[in-house]
Amino acid sequence: MNSNKQNYTVITGASSGIGYATAKAFAQRGSNLVLVARRQEELQALKQQILGQHSSLDIIIKATDLSLPENVYELYADVRNLPLQTWINNAGFGNYASVSQQNIAKIGRLLQLNVEALTILSSLFVRDFQNIAQTQLINVSSCGGYTIVPNAVTYCASKFYVSAFTEGLAWELQQSGAPMRAKVLAPAATQTEFGKIANDVSEYDYRKSFTNYHTSAQVANFLLQLYDSDQVVGLVNREDFSFHLGKPLFPYAGQSKHNQKN
Amino acid sequence: MNSNKQNYTVITGASSGIGYATAKAFAQRGSNLVLVARRQEELQALKQQILGQHSSLDIIIKATDLSLPENVYELYADVRNLPLQTWINNAGFGNYASVSQQNIAKIGRLLQLNVEALTILSSLFVRDFQNIAQTQLINVSSCGGYTIVPNAVTYCASKFYVSAFTEGLAWELQQSGAPMRAKVLAPAATQTEFGKIANDVSEYDYRKSFTNYHTSAQVANFLLQLYDSDQVVGLVNREDFSFHLGKPLFPYAGQSKHNQKN
Repeated sequence: MNSNKQNYTVITGASSGIGYATAKAFAQRGSNLVLVARRQEELQALKQQILGQHSSLDIIIKATDLSLPENVYELYADVRNLPLQTWINNAGFGNYASVSQQNIAKIGRLLQLNVEALTILSSLFVRDFQNIAQTQLINVSSCGGYTIVPNAVTYCASKFYVSAFTEGLAWELQQSGAPMRAKVLAPAATQTEFGKIANDVSEYDYRKSFTNYHTSAQVANFLLQLYDSDQVVGLVNREDFSFHLGKPLFPYAGQSKHNQKN
Repeated sequence: MNSNKQNYTVITGASSGIGYATAKAFAQRGSNLVLVARRQEELQALKQQILGQHSSLDIIIKATDLSLPENVYELYADVRNLPLQTWINNAGFGNYASVSQQNIAKIGRLLQLNVEALTILSSLFVRDFQNIAQTQLINVSSCGGYTIVPNAVTYCASKFYVSAFTEGLAWELQQSGAPMRAKVLAPAATQTEFGKIANDVSEYDYRKSFTNYHTSAQVANFLLQLYDSDQVVGLVNREDFSFHLGKPLFPYAGQSKHNQKN
Protein backbone atom coordinates (compact mmCIF):
# COMPACT_ATOMS: atom_id res chain seq x y z
CA MET A 1 0.00 0.00 0.00
CA ASN A 2 1.23 3.46 -0.85
CA SER A 3 1.68 5.21 2.49
CA ASN A 4 1.03 8.61 0.96
CA LYS A 5 -1.56 10.09 3.29
CA GLN A 6 -3.25 11.72 0.33
CA ASN A 7 -4.69 8.39 -0.77
CA TYR A 8 -8.16 7.12 0.06
CA THR A 9 -9.78 3.70 0.28
CA VAL A 10 -13.54 3.47 -0.32
CA ILE A 11 -15.34 0.62 1.46
CA THR A 12 -19.05 -0.05 0.92
CA GLY A 13 -20.99 -1.98 3.54
CA ALA A 14 -18.62 -0.60 6.19
CA SER A 15 -20.98 -0.40 9.17
CA SER A 16 -20.51 -4.05 10.19
CA GLY A 17 -18.95 -7.38 9.31
CA ILE A 18 -16.22 -7.74 6.71
CA GLY A 19 -16.46 -4.06 5.67
CA TYR A 20 -16.08 -2.88 9.25
CA ALA A 21 -13.05 -5.11 9.89
CA THR A 22 -11.54 -4.09 6.54
CA ALA A 23 -11.92 -0.40 7.44
CA LYS A 24 -9.90 -0.95 10.62
CA ALA A 25 -7.27 -2.95 8.72
CA PHE A 26 -6.77 -0.23 6.09
CA ALA A 27 -6.65 2.47 8.80
CA GLN A 28 -3.95 0.43 10.53
CA ARG A 29 -1.95 0.69 7.32
CA GLY A 30 -2.38 4.46 7.22
CA SER A 31 -5.02 4.84 4.52
CA ASN A 32 -7.61 7.59 4.62
CA LEU A 33 -11.09 6.14 4.27
CA VAL A 34 -14.49 6.73 2.74
CA LEU A 35 -16.90 4.53 4.70
CA VAL A 36 -20.27 3.84 3.07
CA ALA A 37 -23.34 2.13 4.58
CA ARG A 38 -26.99 2.86 5.32
CA ARG A 39 -26.56 3.35 9.07
CA GLN A 40 -25.20 6.78 10.00
CA GLU A 41 -24.76 6.00 13.72
CA GLU A 42 -22.69 2.87 13.15
CA LEU A 43 -20.49 4.71 10.65
CA GLN A 44 -20.04 7.60 13.10
CA ALA A 45 -19.07 5.19 15.91
CA LEU A 46 -16.56 3.42 13.63
CA LYS A 47 -15.10 6.78 12.57
CA GLN A 48 -14.57 7.82 16.20
CA GLN A 49 -13.01 4.48 17.06
CA ILE A 50 -10.56 4.72 14.15
CA LEU A 51 -9.69 8.37 14.89
CA GLY A 52 -9.01 7.39 18.52
CA GLN A 53 -6.14 5.26 17.28
CA HIS A 54 -5.17 7.09 14.08
CA SER A 55 -5.93 10.75 14.66
CA SER A 56 -4.15 12.02 11.55
CA LEU A 57 -6.35 10.09 9.11
CA ASP A 58 -9.21 11.65 7.19
CA ILE A 59 -12.27 9.43 7.69
CA ILE A 60 -15.27 10.41 5.53
CA ILE A 61 -18.60 8.73 6.16
CA LYS A 62 -21.45 8.46 3.66
CA ALA A 63 -24.80 7.17 4.89
CA THR A 64 -26.70 6.01 1.83
CA ASP A 65 -28.70 3.05 0.52
CA LEU A 66 -26.91 1.69 -2.54
CA SER A 67 -29.87 -0.46 -3.56
CA LEU A 68 -31.22 2.73 -5.17
CA PRO A 69 -29.31 3.56 -8.39
CA GLU A 70 -29.63 7.34 -7.91
CA ASN A 71 -27.77 7.02 -4.59
CA VAL A 72 -25.04 5.02 -6.30
CA TYR A 73 -24.38 7.77 -8.84
CA GLU A 74 -24.56 10.45 -6.13
CA LEU A 75 -22.03 8.62 -3.94
CA TYR A 76 -19.59 8.36 -6.82
CA ALA A 77 -20.01 12.03 -7.77
CA ASP A 78 -19.27 12.98 -4.14
CA VAL A 79 -15.96 11.09 -3.96
CA ARG A 80 -14.58 11.07 -7.50
CA ASN A 81 -12.42 14.13 -6.94
CA LEU A 82 -10.58 12.53 -4.02
CA PRO A 83 -7.23 10.82 -4.72
CA LEU A 84 -8.78 7.35 -4.60
CA GLN A 85 -6.39 4.41 -4.54
CA THR A 86 -8.54 1.42 -3.60
CA TRP A 87 -12.24 0.74 -4.03
CA ILE A 88 -13.79 -2.20 -2.17
CA ASN A 89 -17.33 -3.16 -3.19
CA ASN A 90 -18.27 -5.14 -0.09
CA ALA A 91 -21.94 -4.11 0.34
CA GLY A 92 -24.28 -7.00 -0.34
CA PHE A 93 -26.65 -9.38 1.32
CA GLY A 94 -27.97 -12.91 0.96
CA ASN A 95 -31.22 -14.80 1.14
CA TYR A 96 -31.94 -18.35 2.21
CA ALA A 97 -35.07 -19.62 0.48
CA SER A 98 -36.07 -21.77 -2.47
CA VAL A 99 -36.73 -19.86 -5.70
CA SER A 100 -40.41 -20.82 -5.38
CA GLN A 101 -40.68 -19.41 -1.84
CA GLN A 102 -38.39 -16.40 -2.00
CA ASN A 103 -39.55 -12.86 -1.21
CA ILE A 104 -39.30 -11.34 -4.66
CA ALA A 105 -39.22 -7.73 -3.42
CA LYS A 106 -36.22 -8.63 -1.23
CA ILE A 107 -34.62 -10.37 -4.23
CA GLY A 108 -35.11 -7.15 -6.25
CA ARG A 109 -33.14 -5.21 -3.63
CA LEU A 110 -30.51 -7.97 -3.52
CA LEU A 111 -29.97 -7.72 -7.28
CA GLN A 112 -29.88 -3.91 -7.17
CA LEU A 113 -27.18 -3.99 -4.49
CA ASN A 114 -25.13 -7.13 -5.23
CA VAL A 115 -25.21 -6.73 -9.03
CA GLU A 116 -26.23 -3.28 -10.27
CA ALA A 117 -24.60 -1.02 -7.65
CA LEU A 118 -21.37 -3.03 -7.84
CA THR A 119 -21.37 -2.76 -11.63
CA ILE A 120 -22.02 0.99 -11.71
CA LEU A 121 -19.36 1.75 -9.08
CA SER A 122 -16.81 -0.59 -10.69
CA SER A 123 -17.40 0.93 -14.14
CA LEU A 124 -17.11 4.53 -12.91
CA PHE A 125 -13.99 3.83 -10.82
CA VAL A 126 -12.29 2.01 -13.71
CA ARG A 127 -13.25 4.74 -16.17
CA ASP A 128 -11.65 7.48 -14.07
CA PHE A 129 -8.78 5.72 -12.26
CA GLN A 130 -7.58 2.79 -14.41
CA ASN A 131 -4.48 4.64 -15.56
CA ILE A 132 -3.33 5.66 -12.08
CA ALA A 133 -0.52 3.55 -10.63
CA GLN A 134 -1.20 1.28 -7.64
CA THR A 135 -5.00 1.54 -7.87
CA GLN A 136 -7.04 -1.54 -7.06
CA LEU A 137 -10.69 -2.56 -7.27
CA ILE A 138 -11.64 -5.41 -4.94
CA ASN A 139 -15.12 -6.89 -5.33
CA VAL A 140 -16.40 -9.15 -2.57
CA SER A 141 -18.01 -12.25 -4.04
CA SER A 142 -18.42 -15.55 -2.17
CA CYS A 143 -17.38 -19.16 -2.59
CA GLY A 144 -21.09 -19.34 -3.49
CA GLY A 145 -20.01 -17.31 -6.54
CA TYR A 146 -18.09 -20.36 -7.80
CA THR A 147 -20.22 -23.22 -6.43
CA ILE A 148 -24.04 -23.16 -6.35
CA VAL A 149 -25.40 -23.74 -2.83
CA PRO A 150 -28.91 -25.20 -2.27
CA ASN A 151 -31.50 -22.87 -0.75
CA ALA A 152 -29.39 -19.86 -1.80
CA VAL A 153 -29.64 -20.14 -5.59
CA THR A 154 -30.47 -16.51 -6.42
CA TYR A 155 -27.83 -15.18 -4.01
CA CYS A 156 -25.24 -17.54 -5.50
CA ALA A 157 -26.20 -16.50 -9.04
CA SER A 158 -25.67 -12.84 -8.02
CA LYS A 159 -22.19 -13.82 -6.80
CA PHE A 160 -21.45 -15.80 -9.99
CA TYR A 161 -22.15 -12.45 -11.67
CA VAL A 162 -19.66 -10.69 -9.37
CA SER A 163 -16.98 -13.34 -9.94
CA ALA A 164 -17.38 -13.39 -13.73
CA PHE A 165 -17.61 -9.59 -14.04
CA THR A 166 -14.52 -9.02 -11.91
CA GLU A 167 -12.43 -11.79 -13.49
CA GLY A 168 -13.34 -10.45 -16.94
CA LEU A 169 -12.42 -6.93 -15.88
CA ALA A 170 -9.11 -8.18 -14.47
CA TRP A 171 -8.26 -9.73 -17.86
CA GLU A 172 -9.37 -6.56 -19.64
CA LEU A 173 -7.17 -4.29 -17.50
CA GLN A 174 -4.15 -6.56 -17.84
CA GLN A 175 -4.53 -6.87 -21.61
CA SER A 176 -5.00 -3.11 -22.08
CA GLY A 177 -1.83 -2.38 -20.11
CA ALA A 178 -3.70 -0.29 -17.52
CA PRO A 179 -1.99 -0.27 -14.12
CA MET A 180 -5.22 -0.76 -12.13
CA ARG A 181 -5.78 -4.29 -10.82
CA ALA A 182 -9.22 -5.85 -10.29
CA LYS A 183 -9.58 -8.70 -7.79
CA VAL A 184 -12.28 -11.02 -6.40
CA LEU A 185 -12.49 -11.99 -2.72
CA ALA A 186 -14.62 -15.12 -2.21
CA PRO A 187 -15.16 -15.87 1.50
CA ALA A 188 -17.07 -18.84 2.90
CA ALA A 189 -19.31 -18.59 5.99
CA THR A 190 -18.24 -15.54 8.01
CA GLN A 191 -19.69 -14.48 11.36
CA THR A 192 -21.39 -11.21 10.40
CA GLU A 193 -24.92 -9.84 10.13
CA PHE A 194 -25.22 -11.90 6.92
CA GLY A 195 -26.96 -14.77 8.71
CA LYS A 196 -29.61 -12.55 10.27
CA ILE A 197 -30.48 -10.77 7.05
CA ALA A 198 -30.35 -13.87 4.84
CA ASN A 199 -32.69 -15.71 7.21
CA ASP A 200 -34.94 -12.73 8.12
CA VAL A 201 -34.32 -13.26 11.85
CA SER A 202 -33.17 -10.91 14.61
CA GLU A 203 -30.64 -13.34 16.11
CA TYR A 204 -28.46 -15.89 14.31
CA ASP A 205 -25.97 -18.23 15.92
CA TYR A 206 -23.16 -19.24 13.55
CA ARG A 207 -22.00 -21.91 16.02
CA LYS A 208 -25.33 -23.72 15.64
CA SER A 209 -25.66 -23.27 11.88
CA PHE A 210 -22.15 -24.04 10.64
CA THR A 211 -19.51 -26.59 11.56
CA ASN A 212 -16.89 -24.00 10.60
CA TYR A 213 -16.80 -20.28 9.85
CA HIS A 214 -14.41 -17.33 9.86
CA THR A 215 -14.55 -14.09 11.85
CA SER A 216 -14.75 -10.77 9.99
CA ALA A 217 -11.22 -9.97 11.19
CA GLN A 218 -9.92 -13.18 9.61
CA VAL A 219 -11.61 -12.35 6.30
CA ALA A 220 -10.27 -8.75 6.41
CA ASN A 221 -6.83 -10.33 6.77
CA PHE A 222 -7.49 -12.49 3.68
CA LEU A 223 -8.54 -9.33 1.83
CA LEU A 224 -5.20 -7.69 2.74
CA GLN A 225 -3.33 -10.79 1.53
CA LEU A 226 -5.21 -10.50 -1.77
CA TYR A 227 -4.46 -6.77 -1.88
CA ASP A 228 -0.73 -7.41 -1.39
CA SER A 229 -0.54 -10.21 -3.97
CA ASP A 230 -0.33 -10.22 -7.76
CA GLN A 231 -3.17 -12.74 -7.96
CA VAL A 232 -6.75 -12.07 -9.07
CA VAL A 233 -8.84 -14.43 -6.90
CA GLY A 234 -8.74 -14.96 -3.13
CA LEU A 235 -10.96 -17.96 -2.40
CA VAL A 236 -11.84 -19.73 0.83
CA ASN A 237 -12.12 -23.49 0.40
CA ARG A 238 -15.62 -24.37 1.58
CA GLU A 239 -14.54 -27.80 2.84
CA ASP A 240 -11.52 -27.03 5.03
CA PHE A 241 -11.80 -23.20 5.24
CA SER A 242 -8.25 -22.68 3.98
CA PHE A 243 -7.57 -19.48 1.99
CA HIS A 244 -5.98 -19.59 -1.47
CA LEU A 245 -4.73 -16.87 -3.80
CA GLY A 246 -4.78 -17.70 -7.48
CA LYS A 247 -5.56 -16.93 -11.09
CA PRO A 248 -9.07 -16.38 -12.49
CA LEU A 249 -11.14 -19.57 -12.27
CA PHE A 250 -13.69 -19.21 -15.08
CA PRO A 251 -12.91 -20.05 -18.74
CA TYR A 252 -11.83 -17.01 -20.74
CA ALA A 253 -11.98 -16.76 -24.53
CA GLY A 254 -9.35 -14.04 -24.80
CA GLN A 255 -6.79 -16.04 -26.74
CA SER A 256 -8.62 -16.30 -30.07
CA LYS A 257 -9.31 -13.46 -32.50
CA HIS A 258 -12.84 -14.45 -33.35
CA ASN A 259 -14.21 -14.08 -29.88
CA GLN A 260 -17.39 -12.09 -30.24
CA LYS A 261 -20.21 -14.26 -29.05
CA ASN A 262 -23.94 -14.03 -28.43
CA MET B 1 -45.35 -31.32 -25.85
CA ASN B 2 -48.86 -31.81 -24.58
CA SER B 3 -51.07 -31.25 -27.61
CA ASN B 4 -53.98 -30.09 -25.43
CA LYS B 5 -55.01 -26.84 -27.07
CA GLN B 6 -55.73 -25.34 -23.67
CA ASN B 7 -52.01 -24.99 -22.97
CA TYR B 8 -50.00 -21.83 -23.52
CA THR B 9 -46.33 -21.06 -24.11
CA VAL B 10 -45.05 -17.62 -23.05
CA ILE B 11 -42.11 -16.27 -25.05
CA THR B 12 -40.43 -12.97 -24.14
CA GLY B 13 -38.42 -11.11 -26.76
CA ALA B 14 -40.72 -12.60 -29.42
CA SER B 15 -40.69 -9.76 -31.98
CA SER B 16 -37.48 -10.90 -33.68
CA GLY B 17 -34.57 -13.32 -33.61
CA ILE B 18 -34.59 -16.49 -31.52
CA GLY B 19 -37.89 -15.57 -29.82
CA TYR B 20 -39.63 -15.01 -33.18
CA ALA B 21 -38.37 -18.32 -34.59
CA THR B 22 -39.29 -20.11 -31.35
CA ALA B 23 -42.84 -18.72 -31.52
CA LYS B 24 -43.26 -20.22 -34.99
CA ALA B 25 -41.80 -23.54 -33.86
CA PHE B 26 -44.17 -23.83 -30.89
CA ALA B 27 -47.14 -22.82 -33.06
CA GLN B 28 -46.15 -25.59 -35.48
CA ARG B 29 -46.49 -28.00 -32.56
CA GLY B 30 -49.96 -26.70 -31.75
CA SER B 31 -49.26 -24.58 -28.70
CA ASN B 32 -51.23 -21.43 -27.96
CA LEU B 33 -48.88 -18.52 -27.41
CA VAL B 34 -48.34 -15.40 -25.33
CA LEU B 35 -45.87 -13.29 -27.31
CA VAL B 36 -44.11 -10.51 -25.38
CA ALA B 37 -41.88 -7.72 -26.73
CA ARG B 38 -41.74 -3.92 -26.82
CA ARG B 39 -42.83 -3.57 -30.45
CA GLN B 40 -46.59 -3.89 -30.96
CA GLU B 41 -46.45 -3.82 -34.77
CA GLU B 42 -43.92 -6.64 -35.04
CA LEU B 43 -45.93 -8.76 -32.59
CA GLN B 44 -49.12 -8.07 -34.54
CA ALA B 45 -47.46 -9.08 -37.82
CA LEU B 46 -46.11 -12.29 -36.26
CA LYS B 47 -49.54 -13.08 -34.83
CA GLN B 48 -51.20 -12.68 -38.27
CA GLN B 49 -48.51 -14.83 -39.89
CA ILE B 50 -49.00 -17.62 -37.34
CA LEU B 51 -52.81 -17.45 -37.56
CA GLY B 52 -52.56 -17.69 -41.34
CA GLN B 53 -51.10 -21.17 -40.92
CA HIS B 54 -52.67 -22.22 -37.60
CA SER B 55 -56.04 -20.51 -37.43
CA SER B 56 -57.30 -22.47 -34.41
CA LEU B 57 -54.56 -21.26 -32.07
CA ASP B 58 -55.04 -18.49 -29.52
CA ILE B 59 -52.19 -16.01 -29.98
CA ILE B 60 -52.03 -13.30 -27.30
CA ILE B 61 -49.63 -10.39 -27.77
CA LYS B 62 -48.29 -8.20 -24.98
CA ALA B 63 -46.36 -5.07 -25.95
CA THR B 64 -44.33 -4.07 -22.90
CA ASP B 65 -40.80 -3.08 -21.89
CA LEU B 66 -39.54 -5.67 -19.39
CA SER B 67 -36.58 -3.53 -18.37
CA LEU B 68 -39.06 -1.75 -16.05
CA PRO B 69 -39.91 -3.96 -13.04
CA GLU B 70 -43.51 -2.68 -12.78
CA ASN B 71 -44.14 -3.94 -16.33
CA VAL B 72 -42.71 -7.34 -15.38
CA TYR B 73 -45.15 -7.76 -12.51
CA GLU B 74 -48.03 -6.48 -14.65
CA LEU B 75 -47.26 -8.95 -17.46
CA TYR B 76 -47.25 -11.84 -15.04
CA ALA B 77 -50.53 -10.74 -13.40
CA ASP B 78 -52.11 -10.56 -16.87
CA VAL B 79 -51.22 -14.15 -17.84
CA ARG B 80 -51.05 -16.11 -14.57
CA ASN B 81 -54.64 -17.36 -14.87
CA LEU B 82 -54.00 -18.96 -18.26
CA PRO B 83 -53.15 -22.69 -18.34
CA LEU B 84 -49.43 -22.01 -18.86
CA GLN B 85 -47.26 -24.97 -19.75
CA THR B 86 -43.97 -23.47 -20.90
CA TRP B 87 -42.29 -20.16 -20.10
CA ILE B 88 -39.33 -19.06 -22.22
CA ASN B 89 -37.32 -16.09 -20.92
CA ASN B 90 -35.64 -15.11 -24.16
CA ALA B 91 -35.70 -11.29 -23.89
CA GLY B 92 -32.23 -9.86 -23.43
CA PHE B 93 -29.56 -7.85 -25.15
CA GLY B 94 -25.81 -7.50 -25.23
CA ASN B 95 -23.17 -4.81 -25.29
CA TYR B 96 -19.73 -4.77 -26.87
CA ALA B 97 -17.46 -2.38 -24.98
CA SER B 98 -14.75 -2.47 -22.35
CA VAL B 99 -15.95 -1.95 -18.78
CA SER B 100 -14.13 1.39 -18.75
CA GLN B 101 -15.88 2.60 -21.91
CA GLN B 102 -19.32 1.10 -21.55
CA ASN B 103 -22.50 3.18 -21.53
CA ILE B 104 -23.55 2.71 -17.93
CA ALA B 105 -27.19 3.70 -18.51
CA LYS B 106 -27.41 1.01 -21.22
CA ILE B 107 -25.78 -1.46 -18.81
CA GLY B 108 -28.42 -0.59 -16.20
CA ARG B 109 -31.16 -1.53 -18.69
CA LEU B 110 -29.24 -4.69 -19.65
CA LEU B 111 -29.11 -5.81 -16.00
CA GLN B 112 -32.78 -4.99 -15.45
CA LEU B 113 -33.78 -7.10 -18.44
CA ASN B 114 -31.22 -9.93 -18.55
CA VAL B 115 -31.05 -10.43 -14.77
CA GLU B 116 -33.91 -8.85 -12.81
CA ALA B 117 -36.87 -9.41 -15.19
CA LEU B 118 -35.76 -13.01 -15.80
CA THR B 119 -35.49 -13.62 -12.05
CA ILE B 120 -38.90 -12.13 -11.23
CA LEU B 121 -40.67 -14.02 -14.03
CA SER B 122 -38.91 -17.30 -13.21
CA SER B 123 -39.73 -16.98 -9.50
CA LEU B 124 -43.40 -16.19 -10.11
CA PHE B 125 -43.84 -18.96 -12.70
CA VAL B 126 -42.15 -21.53 -10.44
CA ARG B 127 -44.17 -20.41 -7.42
CA ASP B 128 -47.50 -20.91 -9.20
CA PHE B 129 -46.81 -23.75 -11.68
CA GLN B 130 -44.03 -25.97 -10.27
CA ASN B 131 -46.48 -28.70 -9.24
CA ILE B 132 -48.21 -28.95 -12.61
CA ALA B 133 -47.14 -31.88 -14.79
CA GLN B 134 -45.20 -31.22 -18.01
CA THR B 135 -44.43 -27.58 -17.21
CA GLN B 136 -41.04 -26.21 -18.26
CA LEU B 137 -39.10 -23.00 -17.74
CA ILE B 138 -36.43 -22.36 -20.38
CA ASN B 139 -34.06 -19.45 -19.78
CA VAL B 140 -31.94 -18.28 -22.69
CA SER B 141 -28.35 -17.73 -21.59
CA SER B 142 -25.35 -17.81 -23.96
CA CYS B 143 -22.13 -19.72 -24.31
CA GLY B 144 -20.86 -16.38 -22.95
CA GLY B 145 -22.65 -17.46 -19.78
CA TYR B 146 -20.08 -20.24 -19.35
CA THR B 147 -16.98 -18.65 -20.90
CA ILE B 148 -16.05 -14.96 -20.43
CA VAL B 149 -15.62 -13.19 -23.79
CA PRO B 150 -13.38 -10.08 -24.12
CA ASN B 151 -15.13 -6.79 -24.85
CA ALA B 152 -18.42 -8.28 -23.57
CA VAL B 153 -17.56 -8.76 -19.89
CA THR B 154 -20.70 -7.27 -18.33
CA TYR B 155 -22.98 -9.04 -20.80
CA CYS B 156 -21.21 -12.34 -20.12
CA ALA B 157 -21.47 -11.81 -16.36
CA SER B 158 -25.24 -11.27 -16.77
CA LYS B 159 -25.38 -14.60 -18.61
CA PHE B 160 -23.25 -16.35 -15.94
CA TYR B 161 -26.03 -15.17 -13.63
CA VAL B 162 -28.69 -16.73 -15.89
CA SER B 163 -26.78 -20.02 -16.18
CA ALA B 164 -26.11 -20.33 -12.43
CA PHE B 165 -29.64 -19.25 -11.43
CA THR B 166 -31.28 -21.71 -13.83
CA GLU B 167 -28.97 -24.62 -13.07
CA GLY B 168 -29.53 -24.06 -9.33
CA LEU B 169 -33.29 -23.90 -9.88
CA ALA B 170 -33.16 -27.12 -11.93
CA TRP B 171 -31.43 -28.88 -9.01
CA GLU B 172 -33.94 -27.39 -6.58
CA LEU B 173 -36.97 -28.59 -8.56
CA GLN B 174 -35.54 -32.07 -9.04
CA GLN B 175 -34.66 -32.45 -5.36
CA SER B 176 -38.05 -31.18 -4.18
CA GLY B 177 -39.85 -33.69 -6.40
CA ALA B 178 -41.70 -30.96 -8.30
CA PRO B 179 -42.63 -31.98 -11.85
CA MET B 180 -41.59 -28.66 -13.43
CA ARG B 181 -38.25 -28.73 -15.26
CA ALA B 182 -35.90 -25.71 -15.57
CA LYS B 183 -33.43 -25.61 -18.47
CA VAL B 184 -30.70 -23.34 -19.87
CA LEU B 185 -30.23 -22.70 -23.60
CA ALA B 186 -26.76 -21.34 -24.36
CA PRO B 187 -26.40 -20.34 -28.02
CA ALA B 188 -23.27 -18.97 -29.66
CA ALA B 189 -23.33 -16.23 -32.31
CA THR B 190 -26.79 -16.18 -33.89
CA GLN B 191 -27.89 -13.95 -36.78
CA THR B 192 -30.44 -11.71 -35.03
CA GLU B 193 -30.78 -8.07 -34.03
CA PHE B 194 -28.29 -8.84 -31.24
CA GLY B 195 -25.34 -7.54 -33.25
CA LYS B 196 -26.98 -4.19 -34.04
CA ILE B 197 -28.02 -3.52 -30.45
CA ALA B 198 -24.80 -4.76 -28.85
CA ASN B 199 -22.74 -2.55 -31.17
CA ASP B 200 -25.12 0.45 -31.22
CA VAL B 201 -25.28 0.39 -35.04
CA SER B 202 -28.21 0.35 -37.47
CA GLU B 203 -26.75 -2.37 -39.72
CA TYR B 204 -24.64 -5.37 -38.72
CA ASP B 205 -23.28 -8.04 -41.03
CA TYR B 206 -22.74 -11.37 -39.27
CA ARG B 207 -20.84 -12.68 -42.30
CA LYS B 208 -18.19 -10.00 -41.82
CA SER B 209 -17.99 -10.25 -38.02
CA PHE B 210 -18.02 -13.99 -37.45
CA THR B 211 -16.41 -16.96 -39.15
CA ASN B 212 -19.43 -19.01 -38.11
CA TYR B 213 -22.91 -18.35 -36.73
CA HIS B 214 -26.35 -19.93 -36.54
CA THR B 215 -29.66 -18.67 -37.88
CA SER B 216 -32.53 -18.02 -35.47
CA ALA B 217 -34.39 -20.99 -36.95
CA GLN B 218 -31.45 -23.27 -36.17
CA VAL B 219 -31.35 -22.05 -32.58
CA ALA B 220 -35.14 -22.45 -32.22
CA ASN B 221 -34.60 -26.05 -33.32
CA PHE B 222 -31.93 -26.46 -30.61
CA LEU B 223 -34.43 -25.06 -28.11
CA LEU B 224 -36.99 -27.69 -29.17
CA GLN B 225 -34.35 -30.42 -28.78
CA LEU B 226 -33.69 -29.15 -25.25
CA TYR B 227 -37.44 -29.00 -24.59
CA ASP B 228 -37.86 -32.62 -25.70
CA SER B 229 -34.91 -33.93 -23.71
CA ASP B 230 -34.43 -34.80 -20.04
CA GLN B 231 -31.25 -32.71 -19.90
CA VAL B 232 -30.78 -29.33 -18.21
CA VAL B 233 -28.29 -27.52 -20.46
CA GLY B 234 -28.32 -27.07 -24.23
CA LEU B 235 -24.98 -25.53 -25.18
CA VAL B 236 -23.50 -24.54 -28.52
CA ASN B 237 -19.77 -25.24 -28.71
CA ARG B 238 -18.18 -21.90 -29.55
CA GLU B 239 -15.35 -23.51 -31.53
CA ASP B 240 -17.18 -25.84 -33.94
CA PHE B 241 -20.80 -24.62 -33.44
CA SER B 242 -22.05 -28.13 -32.61
CA PHE B 243 -25.00 -28.37 -30.20
CA HIS B 244 -24.85 -30.51 -27.05
CA LEU B 245 -27.46 -31.47 -24.48
CA GLY B 246 -26.16 -32.28 -21.02
CA LYS B 247 -26.19 -31.98 -17.25
CA PRO B 248 -25.59 -28.74 -15.31
CA LEU B 249 -22.04 -27.49 -15.80
CA PHE B 250 -21.32 -25.47 -12.66
CA PRO B 251 -20.24 -27.06 -9.35
CA TYR B 252 -23.15 -27.73 -6.99
CA ALA B 253 -22.84 -28.19 -3.22
CA GLY B 254 -26.09 -30.11 -2.86
CA GLN B 255 -24.60 -33.37 -1.68
CA SER B 256 -23.46 -32.29 1.80
CA LYS B 257 -25.74 -31.36 4.70
CA HIS B 258 -23.71 -28.37 5.87
CA ASN B 259 -24.12 -26.39 2.72
CA GLN B 260 -25.14 -22.93 3.84
CA LYS B 261 -22.49 -20.54 2.69
CA ASN B 262 -21.84 -16.84 2.63
